[in-house]
Amino acid sequence: MNGADTSVVLSQEDLDGDTLHEECGVFGILGHEDAAALTALGLHALQHRGQEAAGIVTYDGDQFRSERHLGLVGDSFSKPEIMEQLSGSYAVGHVRYSTTGAPVIRNVQPLFAELDGGGIAVCHNGNFTNAMKLRRQLIKDGAICQSTSDSEVVLQLVARSRKTKIVDRFIEAITQMEGAFSLVALTRKKLIGARDPYGIRPLVLGDLNGAPIFASETCALDIIGAKFIREVENGEVVVCTPGGMESYFPFGQRPARPCIFEYIYFSRPDSIVSGRSVYDVRKAFGRQLAKENPIEADVIVPVPDSGVPAALGYSQESGIPFELGIIRNHYVGRTFIEPTQQIRTLGVKLKHSANQSQIKGKRVVLVDDSLVRGTTSLKIVQMIREAGASEVHFCLASPPIKYSDYYGIDTPVREKLLAAKYDLAGMRNYIGADTLSFLSVDGIYKAMGYEEGRNNEAPQFTDHCFTGDYPTPLTDLINDDDNRTTPRLVEVG
Amino acid sequence: MNGADTSVVLSQEDLDGDTLHEECGVFGILGHEDAAALTALGLHALQHRGQEAAGIVTYDGDQFRSERHLGLVGDSFSKPEIMEQLSGSYAVGHVRYSTTGAPVIRNVQPLFAELDGGGIAVCHNGNFTNAMKLRRQLIKDGAICQSTSDSEVVLQLVARSRKTKIVDRFIEAITQMEGAFSLVALTRKKLIGARDPYGIRPLVLGDLNGAPIFASETCALDIIGAKFIREVENGEVVVCTPGGMESYFPFGQRPARPCIFEYIYFSRPDSIVSGRSVYDVRKAFGRQLAKENPIEADVIVPVPDSGVPAALGYSQESGIPFELGIIRNHYVGRTFIEPTQQIRTLGVKLKHSANQSQIKGKRVVLVDDSLVRGTTSLKIVQMIREAGASEVHFCLASPPIKYSDYYGIDTPVREKLLAAKYDLAGMRNYIGADTLSFLSVDGIYKAMGYEEGRNNEAPQFTDHCFTGDYPTPLTDLINDDDNRTTPRLVEVG
Amino acid sequence: MNGADTSVVLSQEDLDGDTLHEECGVFGILGHEDAAALTALGLHALQHRGQEAAGIVTYDGDQFRSERHLGLVGDSFSKPEIMEQLSGSYAVGHVRYSTTGAPVIRNVQPLFAELDGGGIAVCHNGNFTNAMKLRRQLIKDGAICQSTSDSEVVLQLVARSRKTKIVDRFIEAITQMEGAFSLVALTRKKLIGARDPYGIRPLVLGDLNGAPIFASETCALDIIGAKFIREVENGEVVVCTPGGMESYFPFGQRPARPCIFEYIYFSRPDSIVSGRSVYDVRKAFGRQLAKENPIEADVIVPVPDSGVPAALGYSQESGIPFELGIIRNHYVGRTFIEPTQQIRTLGVKLKHSANQSQIKGKRVVLVDDSLVRGTTSLKIVQMIREAGASEVHFCLASPPIKYSDYYGIDTPVREKLLAAKYDLAGMRNYIGADTLSFLSVDGIYKAMGYEEGRNNEAPQFTDHCFTGDYPTPLTDLINDDDNRTTPRLVEVG
Amino acid sequence: MNGADTSVVLSQEDLDGDTLHEECGVFGILGHEDAAALTALGLHALQHRGQEAAGIVTYDGDQFRSERHLGLVGDSFSKPEIMEQLSGSYAVGHVRYSTTGAPVIRNVQPLFAELDGGGIAVCHNGNFTNAMKLRRQLIKDGAICQSTSDSEVVLQLVARSRKTKIVDRFIEAITQMEGAFSLVALTRKKLIGARDPYGIRPLVLGDLNGAPIFASETCALDIIGAKFIREVENGEVVVCTPGGMESYFPFGQRPARPCIFEYIYFSRPDSIVSGRSVYDVRKAFGRQLAKENPIEADVIVPVPDSGVPAALGYSQESGIPFELGIIRNHYVGRTFIEPTQQIRTLGVKLKHSANQSQIKGKRVVLVDDSLVRGTTSLKIVQMIREAGASEVHFCLASPPIKYSDYYGIDTPVREKLLAAKYDLAGMRNYIGADTLSFLSVDGIYKAMGYEEGRNNEAPQFTDHCFTGDYPTPLTDLINDDDNRTTPRLVEVG
Repeated sequence: MNGADTSVVLSQEDLDGDTLHEECGVFGILGHEDAAALTALGLHALQHRGQEAAGIVTYDGDQFRSERHLGLVGDSFSKPEIMEQLSGSYAVGHVRYSTTGAPVIRNVQPLFAELDGGGIAVCHNGNFTNAMKLRRQLIKDGAICQSTSDSEVVLQLVARSRKTKIVDRFIEAITQMEGAFSLVALTRKKLIGARDPYGIRPLVLGDLNGAPIFASETCALDIIGAKFIREVENGEVVVCTPGGMESYFPFGQRPARPCIFEYIYFSRPDSIVSGRSVYDVRKAFGRQLAKENPIEADVIVPVPDSGVPAALGYSQESGIPFELGIIRNHYVGRTFIEPTQQIRTLGVKLKHSANQSQIKGKRVVLVDDSLVRGTTSLKIVQMIREAGASEVHFCLASPPIKYSDYYGIDTPVREKLLAAKYDLAGMRNYIGADTLSFLSVDGIYKAMGYEEGRNNEAPQFTDHCFTGDYPTPLTDLINDDDNRTTPRLVEVG
Repeated sequence: MNGADTSVVLSQEDLDGDTLHEECGVFGILGHEDAAALTALGLHALQHRGQEAAGIVTYDGDQFRSERHLGLVGDSFSKPEIMEQLSGSYAVGHVRYSTTGAPVIRNVQPLFAELDGGGIAVCHNGNFTNAMKLRRQLIKDGAICQSTSDSEVVLQLVARSRKTKIVDRFIEAITQMEGAFSLVALTRKKLIGARDPYGIRPLVLGDLNGAPIFASETCALDIIGAKFIREVENGEVVVCTPGGMESYFPFGQRPARPCIFEYIYFSRPDSIVSGRSVYDVRKAFGRQLAKENPIEADVIVPVPDSGVPAALGYSQESGIPFELGIIRNHYVGRTFIEPTQQIRTLGVKLKHSANQSQIKGKRVVLVDDSLVRGTTSLKIVQMIREAGASEVHFCLASPPIKYSDYYGIDTPVREKLLAAKYDLAGMRNYIGADTLSFLSVDGIYKAMGYEEGRNNEAPQFTDHCFTGDYPTPLTDLINDDDNRTTPRLVEVG
Repeated sequence: MNGADTSVVLSQEDLDGDTLHEECGVFGILGHEDAAALTALGLHALQHRGQEAAGIVTYDGDQFRSERHLGLVGDSFSKPEIMEQLSGSYAVGHVRYSTTGAPVIRNVQPLFAELDGGGIAVCHNGNFTNAMKLRRQLIKDGAICQSTSDSEVVLQLVARSRKTKIVDRFIEAITQMEGAFSLVALTRKKLIGARDPYGIRPLVLGDLNGAPIFASETCALDIIGAKFIREVENGEVVVCTPGGMESYFPFGQRPARPCIFEYIYFSRPDSIVSGRSVYDVRKAFGRQLAKENPIEADVIVPVPDSGVPAALGYSQESGIPFELGIIRNHYVGRTFIEPTQQIRTLGVKLKHSANQSQIKGKRVVLVDDSLVRGTTSLKIVQMIREAGASEVHFCLASPPIKYSDYYGIDTPVREKLLAAKYDLAGMRNYIGADTLSFLSVDGIYKAMGYEEGRNNEAPQFTDHCFTGDYPTPLTDLINDDDNRTTPRLVEVG
Repeated sequence: MNGADTSVVLSQEDLDGDTLHEECGVFGILGHEDAAALTALGLHALQHRGQEAAGIVTYDGDQFRSERHLGLVGDSFSKPEIMEQLSGSYAVGHVRYSTTGAPVIRNVQPLFAELDGGGIAVCHNGNFTNAMKLRRQLIKDGAICQSTSDSEVVLQLVARSRKTKIVDRFIEAITQMEGAFSLVALTRKKLIGARDPYGIRPLVLGDLNGAPIFASETCALDIIGAKFIREVENGEVVVCTPGGMESYFPFGQRPARPCIFEYIYFSRPDSIVSGRSVYDVRKAFGRQLAKENPIEADVIVPVPDSGVPAALGYSQESGIPFELGIIRNHYVGRTFIEPTQQIRTLGVKLKHSANQSQIKGKRVVLVDDSLVRGTTSLKIVQMIREAGASEVHFCLASPPIKYSDYYGIDTPVREKLLAAKYDLAGMRNYIGADTLSFLSVDGIYKAMGYEEGRNNEAPQFTDHCFTGDYPTPLTDLINDDDNRTTPRLVEVG
């Protein structure tokens, strides 16, 4: 019957654009002789948060030492000649996903500023929603920005602060910032971890034989055998020194509102975020989805790899068998960088192939974590139909994404979001499935244990992508006309 | 009692050596204008059979054209400047895993020989067990071998043949060879596929809009939307010309005896080998394992990714939930090529991490496809224990590997095979599990549908790794003392 | 008889350190559609002034565009994908020689600052003698320095200036600087060339079809067929706009005192510096040397390539034949980057070999431009002796170098300068020649046409390397103890 | 008046094609513990004979070891990881210039063949004029050629020989070859040097502390401090063993007829070829040229660098001053590999610039070694005119090149040789000089000391490029129609 017109030709850009990207992962450790190697391992565990570039800055008691490289952590930070440069027992590191343009090394973090009698290196995960406004003011005041990274604004504000103590300068800087941020900073004597007032992006505190650690996720602690101590709280600034640890709440205290997408897509399944196993939450999303959208089918098939936990949950709730009906080719990823036109037209099959024995003649429920532009889903439905499925039901373990993010998730512009363009029938028609179902917004909250669903007065999570309810002002977005009064430097090489 | 001594320090070589490697995948197509691009895609689908190097030779009606490169297919054969070289509508290609020493481009296949009035390119998957003996004779007769690849012997024998027709020359050559081989050869007018008398290594025949195709597995047909026609039979030589196809059986005809390891480990789960879905067979191994070794447990956890289908089968048979208790880091693989010593000591955690929420306090059944040296298993058991499992049961969906392979699978020398060194208790003690179970040899055959189990008079499969029953003579192995009477060229750069 | 002990073993560092290095060449053009390509060519002609890195910034009416690369100009700026980035009809460029440490791209010029409502790119040849002092103050005031390059101080001072017009800001900045500088700067509407009060480093003004050009030497005009207009005067700031040109003298006016080493060694022989052909001056040095130090000999042999013009002058003055008694291997240079120990002990022969037919049995006069550490000279004398010379006379077309430079020439520390360690006899003994002669200080001035020699009241040239007479204060040198109160960032990768 | 039309646009190919290229340099040493490093140095000294690729094969008493790399000797053979591979005290090496197509590593020499109970590595300088004919026969007989290099034919003939002793096999092989060849071969026990019956290409014998050495030129002995023993004679095969040396003359004995172009262009000026200093011979050519073509002029200017010795000779004979009127940019060469179109139109100026102070208003005699296609000469004359010369006289220190070479010098096809297209007036008109003069054929011989000039009955040198008098049959050239009956392999990657 119905189904997508198989003559649709999608560009590689259509397909590549059909995912969400997190911008960063951060890590820091104070007082361990293998600080740089441990940071490299922590960043390796956080690699899913950013694959474009990685950087580490250490302090060896005399000098700050920096290595920043394009590519994966393991490409650079496994080489002896690089690791040898990073002497010292203090280290901070960063993995980065770049949103726009060619990657340029000067945008790779940690960013560093030499201060009067000191220095500071800063790593940032998130996005400041008023960075451009502040940047314009800084330039008016004679600052020279070394990067186009908005993260540099924090550094400039620290450098400009007239306070004398570095913690005071850091706090003065971040209290001028709006938006989402998890920051890890290193000075000659301190390791600082800070989280925005809503705790939108994650940050945890760990310990390895007495050395304090900050990391975006607990999986970065697990890889090096460090203990999880606690989450850094929303709006908290934790200052570690060799002697101890102090905590500040410069924004006052209010309820946390972490980003729901860490559970849906970004965090690694083995991480514990705000006390919940990401894997368990995803399974719970799948169970809730099965309750909300029961389907008569023969087989539950995950879209690999992100749909696997939700599909398992759906299968366990529904009793329909879970099978690997789609096989992923593990050798794609960084390969086929410049595909020939012939290869390009073959599209998604480079990454996925149908496992016919589980598809042919069957009623198939496909389970994926979320629907962005729908281009990949369209291709997958088509592939499953060609493999002989009698019915194809597409189930998403999250609600329709109708709004762009401005807090560090690289979402397409609103016009490209399928759920912003079409209603349910339109979306179903676009991807060509027999049925299309989404987890409800309340379903998310129920799966998280809030039996009443979302508290609309005080939402428990940051969920604007589904609801349009942004927790902070979007200053730069509103002032967008001002943004290009000055020419910027375009630097490729 | 149980538990491995956690002070065991394993080298990277110990861990790297704990897998089996296939040496090759082959592909050929006759008469399609995108021959080279389709071959590149077919090789990409066969990438799991060899990641060291890839090569393609085309014939454009005037010249043979060759591109051979180290690295993944997509690293080289996605670049326009390379694909443009490969004009012509005939093509053969090869992916290679190297068993020894530094990779050298002259060993990368397809190998080519200019013949009087023609030329031939040959791709080989398998291993000749009398290649060294023949090579010595060829050199005595004045041949110059361009590679250290034993596959070249076929080429030399074709070149030396006094027959006039190229098919006769090819048949004269391969009938001198012993061992396992699936060959695809290209001449100016013909595409030839050939399989050894026992059909040890796989080879299938497909069709894309009238263009005949040979490939190691059906997944290479699926990726380009080609039709599967049939398997090339054991001992068969299929000669395709633009006008049609002819079949020869120069070895006579006997029962096939394909290698059981294609089902256990090598072939892609979505491939159909000898009429059976590899995925289904693996699940059936898991089901049979659950029947033979029922365990009281809370959770079935696959060792990713190769253990997944068997674990699903085990779970479905036993009713114990299947969960992703081990998370694999997808960014390892080609990264961390030269790990620092600090990173090295952390061993297997770079690749795998425990998903604590599914492990802690639980009785865990780990399911893997096979046990080679046991070093990875030891590390995984240790990791699962550290994550808090109350019991760890290690189940293998194949029998103990007690004998080396000589037919194209890169197995460790016999002394390094865990099952050749220890009995069951010794192996269990080495890897530190509470229990250790293997699928029985008869269990394999039962899972494949042979209810009586293995036919010891005429075994249905090549299974010497478990039984020591080699189907062919091992000529070179017996004559090993002769092998180094002449100096060879050691060529790194 | 006498002569160096041939068992002296010199390290590669000894030999590499036996030259002077200029730090930079600069180029700028305003209003030509091929601005970037012309700048690349100009920099190629200036390549002898710096081989470590090159950079170009263009302005295309909307954006500044930057490409900075390690290596030779031709390595990067001949590639279409790089040149295409550099759109626009305004361009400035820089070639750089690095004095210390690993080359880091963030130190490569042009340096750029985004200003309020504008932007400025700056290229610098020379050295500021008070940069560190100013840098400390800037950091105290909250500036973040993007490079360790002292040239950045100018940029920071421009950014900080409270003046409104960019030319005023530029002048305010440079009038705070001490030392030697030839600067070329690009804004959205202007191309600025400036030279320090003494005109120590060179800078010329040219024209190509109405487009004004600044360049370090006239050879950069010649390569693109541009006309030479005039030298930028000492202490002059020339501001070019599409409409015309203005000149400022913010330092007042005083007599010029250009660096004599541009004639002796740095500038290309075909350049015209301050109205004099460099080639002719070098020949005049050779003639003067022959007058001051007449030697009975059979052959005049230049140390290639820098000694050739002086040797020709010596030959023409003395009537002794000029012969290529030393052959230079043109394939050294960037090759043998990591020589093996065996190769290293062979030392200078990789670069030079004796042309025996012109040496054997002859009384040889070797002519070189200058003597720095003497290690290369020692090797060359040894080589000429081994080739059978009956006498070896070493003649330098400049006086003994006794003092380090602080104006942009990378000289060894004073303790390593041969003339600072030894008297004439000691130097002669060290290099092992039969006689050693230098051009006198007055001889230089006489060769330049000042018949009275040097005017010690108001020296016509900057010549402190011979005389210790530095024209400016050496502020940072005096305050050296203060220099390292703050940790700096060590950045290799 | 006369002069080239300055609007002539020449492609880069026109300019690149305006030189002669030698195909190779060879080196071998027997019995020195640093054999590979010494070979690398010898090849470095021979780098002018081939810059495309270099290779070394050693024998360490057990294995032959090979490293072959594209690029300069110093790019690869200075790296410890490469040199460490080349253990052993026997070594042969090769530098190569490639005549056609993309460089492929399998064509890089030394070529190696494993023989029954042994092995042989062969390096070749020259060209076999019957290689294709022999190659066709070999392939008919079942040989597989590993390269498209015609040098491989020797190797195949050695492998096929039915003789038992390797020296006999080698001699049997080379006596089937026609053309020019200087060969160095290495076996497990012997180092062999051989030269064709006319001794067309050079080969010398040296000694380093008892270790015999073969090299193309004496400069390769000088760089390592080895003694020159003698030339290998024309038609001689010298076999070195650790115990001693034997000499064979398998072609009988006849007068030598070495290639005159070694003196004119190829050999390094400091080499001694057949007892004559190349530098002295080139000067003598210049002197003779001045005698044959006296010109009233102000300055003698060499076209750098190859014209320098002849220009010195011309100057000394004529009494007109020698000056560097053209400055060469040493940073060209391997840079500007892919010039932009803008750069390309600027042509020869990238490499050369006029030194105006020696040109302007002067009557200039330009001296170059030889005239091939004339495209570079045209550009140089144009440049000298633009620099203001009042007259430009172009003098060549060799006769007009009217015939192609087939003995290892890469000459353009005959139709592109300027002297094959035009008479003297036509050539002068093409390059735009006021006068054009060539050294006469007899002048060459007179300069070499043969007062009667060329002995036309028994010419003392191979000089067919000027005379058309080829010393050997040109078998393949005559049979050119047969050459492409079989498809060859085109291998780029």
